[in-house]
This record gives sequence, structure tokens and C-alpha cells, in this order.
Amino acid sequence: MRTLYHLWLSPQCRKVRIVLLEKKIEFELRVEKVWERREPFLALNPAGEVPVLVEPDGTALSDGNAICEFLEEIHPDPSLFARHALERAEVRRLVAWFDHKFNHEVTENLVGEKVMKRFLGLGEPRSRAIRAGLKNIHTHLDYIGYLIERRKWLAGEQVSLADFAAAAHLSTVDYLGDVPWDEHEGAKDWYARIKSRPSFRPLLADHIPGVAPPKHYGNLDF
Amino acid sequence: MRTLYHLWLSPQCRKVRIVLLEKKIEFELRVEKVWERREPFLALNPAGEVPVLVEPDGTALSDGNAICEFLEEIHPDPSLFARHALERAEVRRLVAWFDHKFNHEVTENLVGEKVMKRFLGLGEPRSRAIRAGLKNIHTHLDYIGYLIERRKWLAGEQVSLADFAAAAHLSTVDYLGDVPWDEHEGAKDWYARIKSRPSFRPLLADHIPGVAPPKHYGNLDF
Repeated sequence: MRTLYHLWLSPQCRKVRIVLLEKKIEFELRVEKVWERREPFLALNPAGEVPVLVEPDGTALSDGNAICEFLEEIHPDPSLFARHALERAEVRRLVAWFDHKFNHEVTENLVGEKVMKRFLGLGEPRSRAIRAGLKNIHTHLDYIGYLIERRKWLAGEQVSLADFAAAAHLSTVDYLGDVPWDEHEGAKDWYARIKSRPSFRPLLADHIPGVAPPKHYGNLDF
Repeated sequence: MRTLYHLWLSPQCRKVRIVLLEKKIEFELRVEKVWERREPFLALNPAGEVPVLVEPDGTALSDGNAICEFLEEIHPDPSLFARHALERAEVRRLVAWFDHKFNHEVTENLVGEKVMKRFLGLGEPRSRAIRAGLKNIHTHLDYIGYLIERRKWLAGEQVSLADFAAAAHLSTVDYLGDVPWDEHEGAKDWYARIKSRPSFRPLLADHIPGVAPPKHYGNLDF
């Protein structure tokens, strides 16, 4: 059996969980409180970060992107990338957009400030960062709407890792009730399609100790 | 002919340049002053960042990682990843280590503060960030030494994108004279091997307007 070390509101961990479920690969989930810096965990990943995937033979893989590429290589069906090199480049461009640009401009400012800082003992949330996150998210929801007007899914006609990376980030911000869905119909419709996938349900059932989600969070119809 | 839009001290751009040269793919270099936010450039990459690779047919690819994976797919020889999925995961883990962890802990604190801030008009360098960068770099040079004691190259017996990602970052810090090579013999020997590759030479010939490199920078024997 594979084991995935994860944290509840980590978009990278959520992305890997979705990939495992989409590909119907069995795994056990184990919460790793990375701030405790446990020696046996640091031996698995000297970067001290989740996600870490431990293979049945004990080999440990880390970095969300490396894990997703690995799972695609050993389990290519269903493919979460496209078939042709240029289309695959578009999937990877958008994965990077959400994992870096959205992460830096939105996720870190909202989930990072409001939740992770407390777990990591880094002090009080900075209201300026939160304001920036709430402002920046509109550009990204507009961009999703722009893409979805032109394509069925973010990177093309097939659902791909780009959709799952984007939805993983948005789901963590949505847990805080900070996604202005009603002002962005295109993005809202796209997210409703992602939410209804069986691979996405377990994420919506997560409850973070001491932080309750808003009512609409787990509702497939919101 | 392919065109690569780049900036002089961008590690992501340097990584792509090395990959193109290692694979003997012809290309033209064009400097893109991203802070000018030129409309025609934003049309190529709405993220407004370099590197951007424009294919001979005009298709634009962006994100350093997506470009390198694309070049590997269309031009697999010589491979800059390994052959087996687990080894490829190790290459990608280390690429992410340098492109994210090293970038955040070292490159942004040194190159970002001392050089990029001026170009971007973001104000004076913060001395606390510079001190943090100068302190953090030791851990990474130790990690390179640790890997190189056990393997010929960072990710295994073959040179790979992991070596080029690491060397791309270190070369930008070295341009400022901020790499304490003499305290890290293992990393120094490994970097000398990278420096002597023909794919690396053009990087060492770059001169950034208004910023001169230290004497040892372009010297293959330092």
C-alpha cells in the first residue's frame, strides 16, 4: 500500500490526492504536522515539506509536481496531461500558474495568513496581506472565466492536471469562504463541474481542527 | 528559428538556455525587460514573465519547467532526465528544490534584493534579506556536497536537469561574488565540472548593464 503524507489545507497535497483518486490508485493518508520537524519524516524528505508519497517498497517521493509526473508515468490511464507535446506544455504552464502565481498572490495571503501562520507559530495574520489576497483573486477568477469561454476545461477539451491544480488552490480558499463566486459565473460553473467529480469529494469532507468551513463549501450545488 | 525571451540573471532563463544548447537546438536570444510590460509580450505570456520560447510556427510557450519538459519531449536526445520513472522523480524533486527552495531562501534574497529590485523599481535592498541569503546558502552548498559524495551528478550517474537548475541559480549568485566556494569543496568541484561544459559558457559571457561580475566568475579553473 502507498502512503501519502499530507496536510489538510495544502493545495499541493490536494492535487496529489485528486490524481491518485482519478487514476484509482489505492493509498493511505497520514497527516504530517511538518512544523514538528520529526526526524523520521525529515529522512523521507529533507525539505521537511508535504506531500511525500511512500511507495509500497518504501521509496519516498517528494515535491507535488514530481509526484504527479511520476504517477502519470507509471499509471498513464486516464491521462491527466494531454497527448501532444504542445498541449502538455499548456497543461504544465497552467499548473505552474496556479501553483506559483496564484499561490503567491492569493493562497499564501489568505490560507497562509489566516490558517498556516497559526499552525506554524509565525504570529498574527497581516491585514494588508489579506486585503491583497482578496483583491488579487478576482484577476485569477477572470482568467479562469476567459479560458472556460474558449475551452471545455482550463487547458483544452479534456480535464487535466491544470484543472485539478487550480481547483486544489481554490478549494483551500473556499474553505475560508473567501472566493467571490457570485461575481464570476464562468469560474463558478467550472468549479461546480470539478466539485461533482468523485475524486474531489474526500477533500470536501476534510475538517481542519479549530477552523469550520462555510455552509456552501461541501454543497455540490451551492 | 526559435526565439527565447529572457533576462540576464534569471535562473529559469539560464536553465532553458543550457537545455537548448545541450540538445543542440538553434535559437535566438532576445532580452525582455519585463518591467516595461509591453503589450505584444503580454500577449505571448499573460503572466508577464520570462522565459518565453516562441516556436518557429509562432506558438509561444511559457514557464521554465513547462519549456524544459517540452524540449525533452520533442528532442529526447541527449536526455536531461533519467530513464526510469523513479529516477526521473528524483531529477524533478531536485529541480524543484533549487527552483523553489533555493530560489526563496537564497536567490531572491541576494540577486532579487541587490539587482532585480533596482530594475523593477522596488526600492533599496533590505540588509536583513541579504544577511539571510548569505547564511542560507551554506545549507544548500552542504546539500550539494552530500549528494556529490554519493553520486557522480546531483540526481544520479548522469548529468541531468537537476544539475543545470542548481548551477543556473548558483551562477546568478556567483555573478555577485556571493558564493563561499572555498568553504565547500565538494560543491566547488561539481560546479567546476558544470562550468567547463560548452552549454554553460555563453552564460558566463553575459554582462549585466551596470553590474560587473567578480574576477573568478568566468574563469573555468577559479
